[in-house]
Amino acid sequence: MTGLKQAAVVGGTGYGALELIRILENHPFLELTTVISQSEEGNDIGERYPHLQTIRTDSFKNMEAAAACDVIFIAAPAGVASKLIPTLSASKSQIIDLSGDLRLEDSDVYEAWYGLEPPDKAMQQHAVYGLPEVNRETIREARLISNPGCFATAAILGMYPAVKQQLIEPGTIMMDGKTGVSGAGRKMSMMTHFSETNENIKAYRTGAHQHVPEIEEHLGKAAGIQTPVYLQTHLMPMTRGIMVTSYGRLAGSATELQQAYETAYEHEPFTRFRKSGLMPQTKDVYGSSYCDIGVFADERSGTLMTVAVIDNLMKGAAGQAVQNCNIMNGWAEYSGLQMVPQYP
Amino acid sequence: MTGLKQAAVVGGTGYGALELIRILENHPFLELTTVISQSEEGNDIGERYPHLQTIRTDSFKNMEAAAACDVIFIAAPAGVASKLIPTLSASKSQIIDLSGDLRLEDSDVYEAWYGLEPPDKAMQQHAVYGLPEVNRETIREARLISNPGCFATAAILGMYPAVKQQLIEPGTIMMDGKTGVSGAGRKMSMMTHFSETNENIKAYRTGAHQHVPEIEEHLGKAAGIQTPVYLQTHLMPMTRGIMVTSYGRLAGSATELQQAYETAYEHEPFTRFRKSGLMPQTKDVYGSSYCDIGVFADERSGTLMTVAVIDNLMKGAAGQAVQNCNIMNGWAEYSGLQMVPQYP
Amino acid sequence: MTGLKQAAVVGGTGYGALELIRILENHPFLELTTVISQSEEGNDIGERYPHLQTIRTDSFKNMEAAAACDVIFIAAPAGVASKLIPTLSASKSQIIDLSGDLRLEDSDVYEAWYGLEPPDKAMQQHAVYGLPEVNRETIREARLISNPGCFATAAILGMYPAVKQQLIEPGTIMMDGKTGVSGAGRKMSMMTHFSETNENIKAYRTGAHQHVPEIEEHLGKAAGIQTPVYLQTHLMPMTRGIMVTSYGRLAGSATELQQAYETAYEHEPFTRFRKSGLMPQTKDVYGSSYCDIGVFADERSGTLMTVAVIDNLMKGAAGQAVQNCNIMNGWAEYSGLQMVPQYP
Amino acid sequence: MTGLKQAAVVGGTGYGALELIRILENHPFLELTTVISQSEEGNDIGERYPHLQTIRTDSFKNMEAAAACDVIFIAAPAGVASKLIPTLSASKSQIIDLSGDLRLEDSDVYEAWYGLEPPDKAMQQHAVYGLPEVNRETIREARLISNPGCFATAAILGMYPAVKQQLIEPGTIMMDGKTGVSGAGRKMSMMTHFSETNENIKAYRTGAHQHVPEIEEHLGKAAGIQTPVYLQTHLMPMTRGIMVTSYGRLAGSATELQQAYETAYEHEPFTRFRKSGLMPQTKDVYGSSYCDIGVFADERSGTLMTVAVIDNLMKGAAGQAVQNCNIMNGWAEYSGLQMVPQYP
Repeated sequence: MTGLKQAAVVGGTGYGALELIRILENHPFLELTTVISQSEEGNDIGERYPHLQTIRTDSFKNMEAAAACDVIFIAAPAGVASKLIPTLSASKSQIIDLSGDLRLEDSDVYEAWYGLEPPDKAMQQHAVYGLPEVNRETIREARLISNPGCFATAAILGMYPAVKQQLIEPGTIMMDGKTGVSGAGRKMSMMTHFSETNENIKAYRTGAHQHVPEIEEHLGKAAGIQTPVYLQTHLMPMTRGIMVTSYGRLAGSATELQQAYETAYEHEPFTRFRKSGLMPQTKDVYGSSYCDIGVFADERSGTLMTVAVIDNLMKGAAGQAVQNCNIMNGWAEYSGLQMVPQYP
Repeated sequence: MTGLKQAAVVGGTGYGALELIRILENHPFLELTTVISQSEEGNDIGERYPHLQTIRTDSFKNMEAAAACDVIFIAAPAGVASKLIPTLSASKSQIIDLSGDLRLEDSDVYEAWYGLEPPDKAMQQHAVYGLPEVNRETIREARLISNPGCFATAAILGMYPAVKQQLIEPGTIMMDGKTGVSGAGRKMSMMTHFSETNENIKAYRTGAHQHVPEIEEHLGKAAGIQTPVYLQTHLMPMTRGIMVTSYGRLAGSATELQQAYETAYEHEPFTRFRKSGLMPQTKDVYGSSYCDIGVFADERSGTLMTVAVIDNLMKGAAGQAVQNCNIMNGWAEYSGLQMVPQYP
Repeated sequence: MTGLKQAAVVGGTGYGALELIRILENHPFLELTTVISQSEEGNDIGERYPHLQTIRTDSFKNMEAAAACDVIFIAAPAGVASKLIPTLSASKSQIIDLSGDLRLEDSDVYEAWYGLEPPDKAMQQHAVYGLPEVNRETIREARLISNPGCFATAAILGMYPAVKQQLIEPGTIMMDGKTGVSGAGRKMSMMTHFSETNENIKAYRTGAHQHVPEIEEHLGKAAGIQTPVYLQTHLMPMTRGIMVTSYGRLAGSATELQQAYETAYEHEPFTRFRKSGLMPQTKDVYGSSYCDIGVFADERSGTLMTVAVIDNLMKGAAGQAVQNCNIMNGWAEYSGLQMVPQYP
Repeated sequence: MTGLKQAAVVGGTGYGALELIRILENHPFLELTTVISQSEEGNDIGERYPHLQTIRTDSFKNMEAAAACDVIFIAAPAGVASKLIPTLSASKSQIIDLSGDLRLEDSDVYEAWYGLEPPDKAMQQHAVYGLPEVNRETIREARLISNPGCFATAAILGMYPAVKQQLIEPGTIMMDGKTGVSGAGRKMSMMTHFSETNENIKAYRTGAHQHVPEIEEHLGKAAGIQTPVYLQTHLMPMTRGIMVTSYGRLAGSATELQQAYETAYEHEPFTRFRKSGLMPQTKDVYGSSYCDIGVFADERSGTLMTVAVIDNLMKGAAGQAVQNCNIMNGWAEYSGLQMVPQYP
């Protein structure tokens, strides 16, 4: 269609790419012309993914096809994305990287938590951390977006107003993260094997989740106060959804807490604060790009508690990537993202 | 917005109504102005259903609000819908009834299978059975649509080309229906209690499912050949999705079988035939209005087998209702229904 | 069989009672002669619960049948159990109450958290809190056991060695509780409705869970140090299993932490400490009466974290009740409880 | 313990082996001395499978350790088991093979459906098909048992009384098989990947399931009437449980049908017929070795329908293997198998 910008999705066989396809098929200003997968090059998309039969009638392309596109979404694993980006920079494309490669400014921290060689320093500094709620103005001018991690998105949105307004004692933040299995991607492992995961919950990656430094860096920047964070992640017997329940020592009143979140989110298109005092459930945002948040001040025990839920593939990945793209291009921020949460 | 027709959804607290809301929020030619629930009248929709917070800012209305609308979707239980319709007929509204009240032409059959007093005969005869694949031309002229049952939709679409082309011996059709729990609605019962249903499959309503006479009547009309059908329904530990696996004695070749289905569905916007010989899974249509179909001729044992899958709330209810509405109004049949299946 | 003691289960249609039946059918020293349900009196057990067909060939009895039994397990709701016990005290029976009625020594606290009239003070003081790991000697002499709550069992076992050894700062304990749906019993509610709960996680009863005062009282007694506790409970899309992830400010070393738990549990028949540093998953104890525990000292952020898992119907209810019964009668503590966890 | 026979389990890392361990830990006449896994030789069992921590304190052995045992259960994949058996035949051990290698008397049929080189003919003829309900007397004298397949067990038990009593027209049997994911074992594949399988049902291996010839051969022998069978298998979003819903053209009355099943199963310890007319659900046999069966004669459509449910790892594998072992040794048939189904 005339006037549409052309988009490419790189990493076309993973769940992040499939979710991008789901969104972009109905985006009013973007046309998804190019789905790239090195391993599936030349294969029919609709045959490989029968849910796309009659919707995608083209085949997977190789990496060279990306350069001609106006917007390139990279949904490749950490360590791969940062190697692809330099090959694209001659082009004038806008690039949105969904991997963790460009999220940390300190190379040593990246190496320590990812166990990979850090990406080029200049490239990292060029990238803008794409969390619109705290970074919208910078995103507007960016050419290269580093899209936030799924746990990090829920963790930061769930906690930064409290930290910023000094309603929680720094150094006391403990986060309990709960994720559906699709967060682990399509790669097979015993942790994603149905019989091992169904009717089971499991604490994993204790003391070692790579979203911890991301949360510390960007929660600190958003709140203007640096604080260490402990995050324990848990695998849930469900496909989609993340909840981060955050705890800390309360340093303010229930009223101040409500006020801090209302103020922070009243004009946000995708972050919905529950004034009711009720806590959100992951199903409230299923299949959509919303982040729903509830807070509680337990004066009895001196505890502050917040609950933030997202769909890990939407606000935690593809949905947020498209939100960033909309901001970069001056389109209405919700373009292509107006799907109502699927309930039940 | 100027030029949009106004729509009402009646029965606004059930899953059928919630799914209609999900669709109609993004319909290009309809504006959902009115959500009706007698029991919730006056209550805020977004408070009652937090997933709709910020999306619906109005409150539930009572039945009187329906008459002013151009299109009325009735998602009320059997026995209730047929009592509501006469109160609306003074209006010029198009009416789409999602219940089973108007699907059977024989009042005695209705009474025997539903255990309810049959609806007014004239009203029933006025209603058009809204299965577009077999009834599109009549739907175009209709004012009152009887939207098909979820099992019936999958059963008829999965079998009528074979019956019509005489590739199966009449009188030998046995259908194994498998449904997600949302098909039972929001009403609480032990059958929908999580701990009783999770990690469990269950055969239910043996010899007594009210979709049996609906399948027999409308499969017969679609195929031009009347045949009794046996349907055994089973409850699955999942929320959404129906699969009907149909069996019968083979009376043709594998090639004829493929040909019959290709021909029947090649121009259908929502019914996708798998030429590949692979069988569809319910996830291939999750959250969308597609019906995916695969067929197999087992010459070794003389068996014909077909598999049809739908999302019971979409092609099995709300999606098909909107498809019918689009046809009645001369809009593109897929208007508001272009959501890509959610995968995974 | 000669020499067996006779047992009754009161509340025979709930999940706690069903689990007691499952255990007692194979107990070497107890014969389950009497299953009591007021609402089902006279009905055949095997017809009501087909999984018991051919196993139980008797019918539900009324309350009067209990008095003749040597051991009476009461699996009735809070508020009911404490009314039944006085009717039984003329008998010489040992009584094990699975409800929360007798767990709190302070009547005002009971009333505040349960919203019910508190039980008779003398009866409460007569009851022994049946958590063998911290109370074994007192249980040995008891006639009336108050069986711990499911969350409380996992919470106390997961945290008391750390508190006792002063490895955590008092007043900083925050517990994240995650439970399967069977913890809510067979009573129907929207929270236990399959379509609302499947593919969903939900924080519930914020600031108000009745196990909070139970944890505070009995964790305090076990550790010799009183500390307030914050507990946020979450509903998981699974039938069985509880995990309590506990957090607090670290006040010791990783080595001390390991040592505290090894010492506390090395001779316990049902509490298994993971020396490996790996965290347990709920499936490791599925269908068994084990409590598995892992601990972690995050010196980087100054956080202590422990994970405790149980099967809520076993160590969290029926299994622990039988363990208490075994102790009271001087039988091997594992009698009737040697089932291997079901995996997968 | 004195007087116990010694048992070995070969294939100790798969689900069949784990289930054998679960049973044999509590068998009154067998001691599980030896768990064999080539790939895990020397590794601690309790570390590899934390649910067995403190229960198994030994390590995995290699194949040579088997020969000294009185009973050897082989839970290895098809194609492997038949190669192991000759290495054991010098010993006097009783051998129970859980694989499909020895179930088919015709080598060509084996090769056609398994796609593997057929096992030695003499060995196959020496093996007794271990379905006690139809073969008990022969099992009593056997030294080598071929344990039935999971689908085949439910299929044959669900249908043979009807076929034997000529209540169904031969040549019209169509079976709809539904299985939990554990039936596919611990081997990773996209079909057992959580995100692909959860909230999904899928028809698979159309026209090609290797249990088809097994059902035809042994249903034919049991009933005394050979008939082809069509079986369509489906994957369910649950871990354990198989249901086979069988259909065919009715050739008798409802009364004759009830009578045929009552007579066939009235003295069976593990096969329970539902006289009530209600259909069983898989949860009724969860974790136990029961097979529950319900039948229905639909005279309206001329259809006979039966439903048979088992736990695929118990009556469909390990439980039936132990039942066979009990028969071979003259022990009570239910020895070690008296676990009550776990509900919920």
